Amino acid sequence: MAQEMALSDAKIVVVAVGRDHYDYLPLLHLRGKILIDVSNNTERRKGPHYRSNAEYLQGLVPEGKVVKGFNVLSAYALENGGLQGSKEVFISGDHQDAKVVVSDLVRAMGFHPVDWGALQAARDIEDVPLRLMPSWKRPVAVVFGTFLFLWILAFISFQICYNLRLGGWDWGWKHLGMQNFNRVIAICAIWTLSFCYIPGLIAAYIQLWRGTKYSRFPNWLDDWLKMRKQLGLLMLGLAAMHACISAASISPQTTSWVYEEPTVVKALISVDANTSKTDTVKIYNNEFNWRGELFLTMGAVATCLLVVLGISSLPSVTATLSWREFTFIQSKLGWVALVVASAHDIFLAWNYMFLYWGCFNTLPIGPQYALYPPFIAVIMKIPLLLPPVDNYLQKIRKGYERNSKYETGKVEHA
Amino acid sequence: MAQEMALSDAKIVVVAVGRDHYDYLPLLHLRGKILIDVSNNTERRKGPHYRSNAEYLQGLVPEGKVVKGFNVLSAYALENGGLQGSKEVFISGDHQDAKVVVSDLVRAMGFHPVDWGALQAARDIEDVPLRLMPSWKRPVAVVFGTFLFLWILAFISFQICYNLRLGGWDWGWKHLGMQNFNRVIAICAIWTLSFCYIPGLIAAYIQLWRGTKYSRFPNWLDDWLKMRKQLGLLMLGLAAMHACISAASISPQTTSWVYEEPTVVKALISVDANTSKTDTVKIYNNEFNWRGELFLTMGAVATCLLVVLGISSLPSVTATLSWREFTFIQSKLGWVALVVASAHDIFLAWNYMFLYWGCFNTLPIGPQYALYPPFIAVIMKIPLLLPPVDNYLQKIRKGYERNSKYETGKVEHA
Amino acid sequence: MAQEMALSDAKIVVVAVGRDHYDYLPLLHLRGKILIDVSNNTERRKGPHYRSNAEYLQGLVPEGKVVKGFNVLSAYALENGGLQGSKEVFISGDHQDAKVVVSDLVRAMGFHPVDWGALQAARDIEDVPLRLMPSWKRPVAVVFGTFLFLWILAFISFQICYNLRLGGWDWGWKHLGMQNFNRVIAICAIWTLSFCYIPGLIAAYIQLWRGTKYSRFPNWLDDWLKMRKQLGLLMLGLAAMHACISAASISPQTTSWVYEEPTVVKALISVDANTSKTDTVKIYNNEFNWRGELFLTMGAVATCLLVVLGISSLPSVTATLSWREFTFIQSKLGWVALVVASAHDIFLAWNYMFLYWGCFNTLPIGPQYALYPPFIAVIMKIPLLLPPVDNYLQKIRKGYERNSKYETGKVEHA
Repeated sequence: MAQEMALSDAKIVVVAVGRDHYDYLPLLHLRGKILIDVSNNTERRKGPHYRSNAEYLQGLVPEGKVVKGFNVLSAYALENGGLQGSKEVFISGDHQDAKVVVSDLVRAMGFHPVDWGALQAARDIEDVPLRLMPSWKRPVAVVFGTFLFLWILAFISFQICYNLRLGGWDWGWKHLGMQNFNRVIAICAIWTLSFCYIPGLIAAYIQLWRGTKYSRFPNWLDDWLKMRKQLGLLMLGLAAMHACISAASISPQTTSWVYEEPTVVKALISVDANTSKTDTVKIYNNEFNWRGELFLTMGAVATCLLVVLGISSLPSVTATLSWREFTFIQSKLGWVALVVASAHDIFLAWNYMFLYWGCFNTLPIGPQYALYPPFIAVIMKIPLLLPPVDNYLQKIRKGYERNSKYETGKVEHA
Repeated sequence: MAQEMALSDAKIVVVAVGRDHYDYLPLLHLRGKILIDVSNNTERRKGPHYRSNAEYLQGLVPEGKVVKGFNVLSAYALENGGLQGSKEVFISGDHQDAKVVVSDLVRAMGFHPVDWGALQAARDIEDVPLRLMPSWKRPVAVVFGTFLFLWILAFISFQICYNLRLGGWDWGWKHLGMQNFNRVIAICAIWTLSFCYIPGLIAAYIQLWRGTKYSRFPNWLDDWLKMRKQLGLLMLGLAAMHACISAASISPQTTSWVYEEPTVVKALISVDANTSKTDTVKIYNNEFNWRGELFLTMGAVATCLLVVLGISSLPSVTATLSWREFTFIQSKLGWVALVVASAHDIFLAWNYMFLYWGCFNTLPIGPQYALYPPFIAVIMKIPLLLPPVDNYLQKIRKGYERNSKYETGKVEHA
Repeated sequence: MAQEMALSDAKIVVVAVGRDHYDYLPLLHLRGKILIDVSNNTERRKGPHYRSNAEYLQGLVPEGKVVKGFNVLSAYALENGGLQGSKEVFISGDHQDAKVVVSDLVRAMGFHPVDWGALQAARDIEDVPLRLMPSWKRPVAVVFGTFLFLWILAFISFQICYNLRLGGWDWGWKHLGMQNFNRVIAICAIWTLSFCYIPGLIAAYIQLWRGTKYSRFPNWLDDWLKMRKQLGLLMLGLAAMHACISAASISPQTTSWVYEEPTVVKALISVDANTSKTDTVKIYNNEFNWRGELFLTMGAVATCLLVVLGISSLPSVTATLSWREFTFIQSKLGWVALVVASAHDIFLAWNYMFLYWGCFNTLPIGPQYALYPPFIAVIMKIPLLLPPVDNYLQKIRKGYERNSKYETGKVEHA
């Protein structure tokens, strides 16, 4: 009774019960009222005949005006304060007047209403809280797959080959903890950085080939183009970790190529308290050679450029940049970072870049295969930098069509 | 006269004089006008009978429509350009129509009006410019207190005990400059990270114990829950500083536990230009042992995870995340960071974690007491991960009440 | 015909052709319609008689209502999705009703309209896409100029002088790759940080001298004050790069001043496989001396403070701070960072700060001239901290004028 009396005065009713209990609602008393369906599901329920909770409720109360909304906010956080995350509230409904009322309510509560259209959109809105960074799934899979592939390669080089050659099993196991990991994330970072630029190059060649920008790219390329931002940020994480580990661990014992030669002395070595023997000892030199100096500078410059790229990807920074400025940073600075990171790798293995093989002279070494994707990207980029090709591509991107029957080339918008 | 003529035409009058000079205003000519009180105080004046400047002005001109506003902007910066900081202008007043006019004015000037309600709210608005990051006071005090406590502990271990044991006073004083500081901030960081998770655990146990979420937490717990973000950011600062110092200073001379054994040689040492003596010299080995490799990797991984947590706390990044995504990052990634940071500590002192005492066998050593709070957090967390307990807690958080007379468990919102 | 029929029903016409083809437009059919001119130019065309494309179009169709707009968005990105950068669309026009319609259209497309006023403003709007971070040009030039100047100084010290003194040309060339670069960016960073504070000090002295804040600063000072933020961010980049390189490369071989003395031993050195000779070898000690410990701590603290300054400059973080909080961080923390960075420099060259000259006793050494600008800033700052001077300056900044005929000192706004 109390429930019904309360309802009789209300204009808006928030339906905060589970779908299974909609039948128990005093349906008659809900007629003519605005019903806000705030329910969520615990799993995605999909199928051709699936109807969202909000649609189901509308079916039960045809004379009510159901509006889906508020389900993307945490009820727990709303009650306990300290709600964080997006302030957007997605709403949908078939009654425009009801949506206006609910929108005002949303705004009055300090949130931003976003209209997703007809009530049917509630199917998607109800799925939103079940989503967990969907745009990250695929890029994480790509980077993790690349990491795994490179980790296995490194394992073959550093553990299997090395031990077979030395005929022992005492070397290298401990390096799984850091040295292997550090090399693998370094190579994975430069590969991933290349993967950010290769799809744009493929797109350019497709446009040049087809002579128009008015034809869709294949789906795989579309997907690839869309994950560049996430790939870039994952790459930044790998590069930062590589920089941390390397700065703390680099030494002539582990990265001898970039240091001056050690001094070898003959000395009486204490084996234990009572025994000693005369043997040679290497006294390492912590000074970099000229390649090491350039290697380190290139590494630091690349890291800083990548951090600038990352900062420009922060939503509030992006919002202050015009698209031309954003493109300048992401494209020009990114390419410079790729070239500088490649130089970092080349100076590391200066004497071993060509005609040198590891693993019983069969496999390329890490600093070599690290460069394969950047090399592909650069090789693909160079022809596009030639003025005639560049001009032709710009013309296509402004709307020119090679096989068009209409006169073209007039449109001059950005 | 000029003043009064100017006033006769004005609809809005900005009152930009100090409270002490309100009496000199041409009060009669202000009747019926919208008066914007932009004044500020130089100190907080509070008391049961205190009235804000705006209320005092309204008392002097009862027929005027006083609106408090604009006092949170810097007049100096407004004049000289380059105003930075929040674009929000807080307004309050008892005349709705006047507030609408002032709101439009605020918007026209490129700021965002925020209505704080009745004119009485001017008491709070006038205090705003005197505030200096109030939400940071308490967390800074907590972290600084923790730092001081740990610094004294470290001083006892490294300066007092060590010197008493060696019977000398020549060791350790110089280490106050960096080594002590670095160890203390490392331990302070992991303690503070634990402090971010312990209050949530206590809250969960209180909810389980009471069988409901509909009862307020004690005030101390509420305050603690509210300062988690600030604690987390201060912790990130400490962790970053520890990473910087450690990356630059780690060496077998200072952190021997994580490096391979040095080679001890007998050699003829030059004491000065003319004298030399035969003695043993340690030739240190810059290669990490297996524990050191894992120690360093764990440190770098923890640092990067904490940076990701920090980035997700940036307002513009938070705004792009749903509460579920935000909670996932802050909670899941944060716990992983805590566990990885603990592993970083354990690998450092692998052989000294148990049954080892410092300071005349009386005190635990740094890497041991570093783990006390994370250990408490993990011990409290484990029962909550058991499916029956977890399900029961989720049920409570969805609205279930153990001692309720109503049928419950129906509500299924987020 | 199809074109004209399509036009007859349209209320809004988007004119997306180049200026050169406006004559071909069916001008008669455009009368009375809202014409959105989205065109861009490929270069800035300026002159006393220059009219923007939109004004030219309005001249051709006097009965149309031309609104400039959308030209700042990338047409290519709009088509292909994934538009990034600012969401602001600048519009201008002489017909208020037409601008309202276009503003609604902009909002409906998910962008934010910003009204730049009369159609004449199209001259500036058409230049927007040709701009590339104009506020960065000058600061980049200043920092690059400073870098070049310091680089030449370092070249004279480390390459020319050093080699002349040693009478050989084998030292130092390799250090151009990193050591020189690292020293130069370190000095450049601390100079640039000083350049962020010196203009504010000059402004204060001008205000004290003139006894009023109501007189314009000279143009060069105005420009300098406006580039402080950019200078600060460039400085942060230099400081971060210096921190990266130094953390990875610091060693007693290269930065002996901050390490304990090496042990010099006489040993039998292997020159090649068959030859050896007895000579002295330095066995370096990786432990810092007391100056080194403070040097490193100061460096890490300064870096972290500068990063906090950088984070507070992120638009979304700035927006959460009141101007008092923002000023506190940028001014107080910045000054602390400047002092700490100076201490970092002083502890490095503790024994060589005074009465020591490099380069045939003629030139100051790097750590000395690094301190010149911070020293000037501190010397200028100290008098301003004296309470009478500070109070007087605050009084002036609140509106007091020394030579004013009006009674002053009343205004008490922020």
